[in-house]
Amino acid sequence: MLRPAMAQYTVTRPLYSEDSFAQDHEKIYRQRKTLLDHVKAYFTCNSKRAKNTALSLLPIIGWMRIYRIKEWLLSDIVSGISTGLVAVLQGLAYSLLASLPPWYGLFAAFFPVITYFFLGTSRHISVGAFPVLSLMVGAVVTRLVPDEGPPANITGFEGLTPDQQRVVVAASVTFLMGIFQLAMGLLQVGFIVMYLSDTLVSGFTTAAAVHILVSQLKFVLGLVVPGLSGPLAIIYTLEKIFVQITDTNIADLVTSIIVMVVVFIVKELNDRYKAKLPVPIPIEVIMTVIACGVSYAFNFKDKYKVDVVGAIPKGYEPPMAPNMQIFAQTAVEAFPMAIVGFAVAFSVAKVYATKHDYLIDGNQELIAFGVSNIFGAAFRSFAASTALSRSAVQESTGGKTQVAGLLSAIIVMIVTLAIGFLLEPLPKSVLGAVVIINLKGMLMQFRDIPYLWRKDRPDCVVWIVTCVASILLGLDLGLAVGLGVELLAVVFRTQFPRCSVLVNIKGTDIYRDRKDYLSIYEPDGVKIFRIPSPIFFANIEFFRGKLVEAVGFNPLRVLRKRNKALRKIRKLLKKGELQITDKGLMQTGSGPIEESEDESNMEDLDQPTNFQDLPVQVNWNAELPAGICVPKVDIHSIILDFAAVSFLDISALKGLKAALKEFIRVDVEVYIVACDTYILEKLHSCKFFDDEIKTSIFFPTLHDAMLHTLERHPCQSQHKSPFEKVFTHSNHDSQINGGSSLRNRDKVVSEPETKF
Amino acid sequence: MLRPAMAQYTVTRPLYSEDSFAQDHEKIYRQRKTLLDHVKAYFTCNSKRAKNTALSLLPIIGWMRIYRIKEWLLSDIVSGISTGLVAVLQGLAYSLLASLPPWYGLFAAFFPVITYFFLGTSRHISVGAFPVLSLMVGAVVTRLVPDEGPPANITGFEGLTPDQQRVVVAASVTFLMGIFQLAMGLLQVGFIVMYLSDTLVSGFTTAAAVHILVSQLKFVLGLVVPGLSGPLAIIYTLEKIFVQITDTNIADLVTSIIVMVVVFIVKELNDRYKAKLPVPIPIEVIMTVIACGVSYAFNFKDKYKVDVVGAIPKGYEPPMAPNMQIFAQTAVEAFPMAIVGFAVAFSVAKVYATKHDYLIDGNQELIAFGVSNIFGAAFRSFAASTALSRSAVQESTGGKTQVAGLLSAIIVMIVTLAIGFLLEPLPKSVLGAVVIINLKGMLMQFRDIPYLWRKDRPDCVVWIVTCVASILLGLDLGLAVGLGVELLAVVFRTQFPRCSVLVNIKGTDIYRDRKDYLSIYEPDGVKIFRIPSPIFFANIEFFRGKLVEAVGFNPLRVLRKRNKALRKIRKLLKKGELQITDKGLMQTGSGPIEESEDESNMEDLDQPTNFQDLPVQVNWNAELPAGICVPKVDIHSIILDFAAVSFLDISALKGLKAALKEFIRVDVEVYIVACDTYILEKLHSCKFFDDEIKTSIFFPTLHDAMLHTLERHPCQSQHKSPFEKVFTHSNHDSQINGGSSLRNRDKVVSEPETKF
Repeated sequence: MLRPAMAQYTVTRPLYSEDSFAQDHEKIYRQRKTLLDHVKAYFTCNSKRAKNTALSLLPIIGWMRIYRIKEWLLSDIVSGISTGLVAVLQGLAYSLLASLPPWYGLFAAFFPVITYFFLGTSRHISVGAFPVLSLMVGAVVTRLVPDEGPPANITGFEGLTPDQQRVVVAASVTFLMGIFQLAMGLLQVGFIVMYLSDTLVSGFTTAAAVHILVSQLKFVLGLVVPGLSGPLAIIYTLEKIFVQITDTNIADLVTSIIVMVVVFIVKELNDRYKAKLPVPIPIEVIMTVIACGVSYAFNFKDKYKVDVVGAIPKGYEPPMAPNMQIFAQTAVEAFPMAIVGFAVAFSVAKVYATKHDYLIDGNQELIAFGVSNIFGAAFRSFAASTALSRSAVQESTGGKTQVAGLLSAIIVMIVTLAIGFLLEPLPKSVLGAVVIINLKGMLMQFRDIPYLWRKDRPDCVVWIVTCVASILLGLDLGLAVGLGVELLAVVFRTQFPRCSVLVNIKGTDIYRDRKDYLSIYEPDGVKIFRIPSPIFFANIEFFRGKLVEAVGFNPLRVLRKRNKALRKIRKLLKKGELQITDKGLMQTGSGPIEESEDESNMEDLDQPTNFQDLPVQVNWNAELPAGICVPKVDIHSIILDFAAVSFLDISALKGLKAALKEFIRVDVEVYIVACDTYILEKLHSCKFFDDEIKTSIFFPTLHDAMLHTLERHPCQSQHKSPFEKVFTHSNHDSQINGGSSLRNRDKVVSEPETKF
Repeated sequence: MLRPAMAQYTVTRPLYSEDSFAQDHEKIYRQRKTLLDHVKAYFTCNSKRAKNTALSLLPIIGWMRIYRIKEWLLSDIVSGISTGLVAVLQGLAYSLLASLPPWYGLFAAFFPVITYFFLGTSRHISVGAFPVLSLMVGAVVTRLVPDEGPPANITGFEGLTPDQQRVVVAASVTFLMGIFQLAMGLLQVGFIVMYLSDTLVSGFTTAAAVHILVSQLKFVLGLVVPGLSGPLAIIYTLEKIFVQITDTNIADLVTSIIVMVVVFIVKELNDRYKAKLPVPIPIEVIMTVIACGVSYAFNFKDKYKVDVVGAIPKGYEPPMAPNMQIFAQTAVEAFPMAIVGFAVAFSVAKVYATKHDYLIDGNQELIAFGVSNIFGAAFRSFAASTALSRSAVQESTGGKTQVAGLLSAIIVMIVTLAIGFLLEPLPKSVLGAVVIINLKGMLMQFRDIPYLWRKDRPDCVVWIVTCVASILLGLDLGLAVGLGVELLAVVFRTQFPRCSVLVNIKGTDIYRDRKDYLSIYEPDGVKIFRIPSPIFFANIEFFRGKLVEAVGFNPLRVLRKRNKALRKIRKLLKKGELQITDKGLMQTGSGPIEESEDESNMEDLDQPTNFQDLPVQVNWNAELPAGICVPKVDIHSIILDFAAVSFLDISALKGLKAALKEFIRVDVEVYIVACDTYILEKLHSCKFFDDEIKTSIFFPTLHDAMLHTLERHPCQSQHKSPFEKVFTHSNHDSQINGGSSLRNRDKVVSEPETKF
């Protein structure tokens, strides 16, 4: 023993193939549920299920019943007021991203919140405008109602001002997005957000931050730049900005820079003294109020020609029906909006649900956001999701339930109905500055690139492609491209895996890559080939190539050569130039036969070698007479390690079957080990087995298959039956004289009973 | 022994963890090639490589050197003439699919063949028009130059007839397609055709057959139907056909039906007597000649208003430059054409290459088709690939090399230059009938649906979606949708795999699903969880959920409850309501403490339990005083079977790390077994290991980990050290009294040294 007191690993059991294992260990018959059963179960209805469904459709019933008025109400009120102030400010700012008049952002912070209060399962998120989503709305709005040139040809636009047309577009696309979300929720397909990996979302939101930054530059600089959309819009926008950079409004620029610097510093302080501050300082709200006052006092609007928020109409507008023509023209854009809106809200909600230990229901969230967006759109609000920053305010100021959300909506309503006029002198550049400074976190994600590059190349490629595509092609197309690349990356990871030839590690039942270890035992004539990934259409040919490479010969070519040789032997026998003797076949003719290409029956050459009409079998590895030459095959068994094959598709099934047959037809035995139970079942149900491929080729472990092989092909060395000796000694033995004497044995001759 | 003379499986070796295995078995240090090395190797240049590259760029040099004039030339001549006749007929027919005047199909059967002769690596395919590709050209042509309404606004169209405009469009899109193919060939990305699985191609070509059928109906019925393109074009086309179905030209219909019936019957006979016929009867050519004669004799054109091929201009037209504006407008369509054209040619070429035992080079094929299409387009030919039917003629009539192809091109040239006028009276309905009857094989692929449904559901879904999308949305969009669904199917297969809890099969070292077997050994406190697929962003959460389900408790919740309990204990100790005695903690206060929510430091609850300032450790599974209640954890070890985990991405890495920490923090040991070497290396390089997660958790086999666990947590039953006894007896022993007495042992108590 090398290390004293080390535990031993001792196993003595019969050698098992899958067949003999199944004989010894009876399997319990389990009735598997079919697709029909699942469908039936899904549509089964009873009173309990009905009640549960009703409850899950109105989550408010659940949490209202456990609402602790004494403890929670005060927290909710404090949180609601703080969140409401932030919601007013963000509503104004984000409606600029959506290319809409500022006060529509107040609608987005009011209507969707009301319905979410009843339908939502998250108790902590603050529903309302989300910058990326607002920007996506803005792209649609500026495409259909451009700043320059006529609006799209849509009935219903007649007699409306451009701003009114834009509101109609924004509301309609929001309505459609709500329909998509509601439909997805009812169809229970909320799981699709799983496909938005962290990497994809990081690349996408970074690109969105770049778009937002560029879109806010015009407000910060006080320039008039038409909103553009479509591929490369960002380039054209930057071009238009730089062309007129000399016209920058200095008052706007200075105000913006002051706001940005102050907000940035106070936010850093908030972060640093997080533990000590009871509540973070609401610096954006403070700066906005100050800017409002200063702008009013010095009459920025007239004196410095600063663009201000301007008159906010008091009260709400009558509800409107969405425009069907706009539906048709924006369907392709509304779908990614529905996905992005839901994905963001769901991921933020999940963070708080984990933190506060309650469950959120993805499908119910989809329904809640769907209804909220439909309801909001009917009142001219635009697309709602959640903003991380606002939700953080709601939660950190003590919000316990959506009661806080409802109160924030009431604050927004008060601003809309009563004191909105106070915001009139607020310069738009201040809103732009607040938006830009909040991009810090999203832009910091650029640091993911070197991190991902070091850790995982494919993920890094997905990040970069998603980001670049989203910046250049626009957010909707970019998201589609990113998704495609991400899926391709998954396929790619399994497509060119590192196959390896395994060998036994001396004195153990462990098998490892032969290139990695020194003390290995590798009996002649056996190759162990590990397939380290699932097999499917994109890699089955790759594996067949690698397998041929590993064994060192192409079985199909060998088979053809053998069949050709057989044809010749038959011909020679007919002509009498070969004769059958005791020692096999003897050449009596005069040397090699002329080469003649007889391609009349090419297909026959792929059939198994047929010795039927010949009096002897041919040992292909012996010397053949009459100049007939076939490639030697020095392998009698191939063992395929299927441990990592997690699925097989139909192409893989066909390819595998063809590959196995090719080897079996040149008298090489093929064994498959550690195959998954479900794959084995599938092989049975797909009629994988026939006369040539039998179920007896499956073994539970590599070592079982190896022992079986060695038993069938005992080596011609001094040991008569070496496999037990080799494999049963302890580690100690093998280190001294165990397997080494068994290496470099004579070539194993397959079919020793046949003579030529 | 149950079966006499059965081989035994006996292993005695030390118990290994991955760490101790690495100590005992030294690993050879292998320098892995970095990306940079690969790039360097790729760009290394020497004279031999240069020569090989030159040779591979001109494959004709290779096969010309081994050309056996005596044996091959005659075959090639016979084959060339037969193929040439078929090429003429197909050229005329397929140019109808491309919505071009018939004689341009003769160009497509001539120019690309010339360049392919020099550059192609396949010796047997017949280059020229391919129906699906012709239809895709037709879709572009009718989009830019519709039958009704003005053509697209393109400079260069002025002063051209609609037919001339169409030729310009077809040639330009072919040129662009050639550029794409050439670029892909030079970039060595020929492997992308791997993504076109058999299922996808089957669904796609079936859809194409439906499109072709519909597009030929107008010729067969003698109707005037404008060519349409874009989504749902097939529905509109059918509508237009049925609206005027009463105007059917009876002469056309009768001719078509006769041709179809005769061709169908003779083709069936060809199939049936394949073995006896030296060469299949060229029934299409015969029927065409007869139809030509009949039409001329009875003056079909004037008498029955039958639409005929009409005057074919003698000779070739001057070369032309492609139109850049058309490039910009057709780029999205040219790319799928490049893929489809290459994929079809490559798959046909591969069949013959395998049959005749030579190699084809995918990238060189891309270059060959790229150059051929660019060259052809310059002479107004349209997109070339290969048609399976024509290649079959070339090969079956004895073609040995592309010399046959060259001769077929010369036949086509003779028809173009000299005897084209003979084809003038040929009714277009005959061409349509020939095209339709050749669709039989493609339409028969509908039989794949029930076959795939039985064998592999996801593949069936891919087939149906690809086919339906290609029919309804058009071939280019349909191909994109199909590809997306196909990739999604691969992801989907690994996304919701069947996880299982494994148990030891009594008397063996084999572990199987516990639900499947009766004679199992499952020590208390150990759970073996098998992850049967790669782990990545789309399924990491799924696995974490399944693992929590399998172990029966959520570790994060348990940890939080424990930390909360610890806070209470500290408080009680401070207040003096708890005292430390010899037996642990003793309650001296007056019953349960009031519930009070202290959420000031929620994050602290996720940290490891900290006993630092407490005089004793707490045994969480014992009864706790003072009404403090934490969930019991009856598991001390989890073993994760990673055998089928073929890759981990960055999200999976993070998720796995978080999951492991959660369990480790509630004092559950986690072991990972059978982890791939490359994954282990990746975990090291990604800094997966830290104070909590150690490398010692990795074991080479399930049995090693199980033995290790049992050693660390010896059971409280009558056996002192049962694990060796249980696991070393032979099968015979275990069947009688082996492991059964060890089941239903006392609960294993974790941390027996701690007292409360």
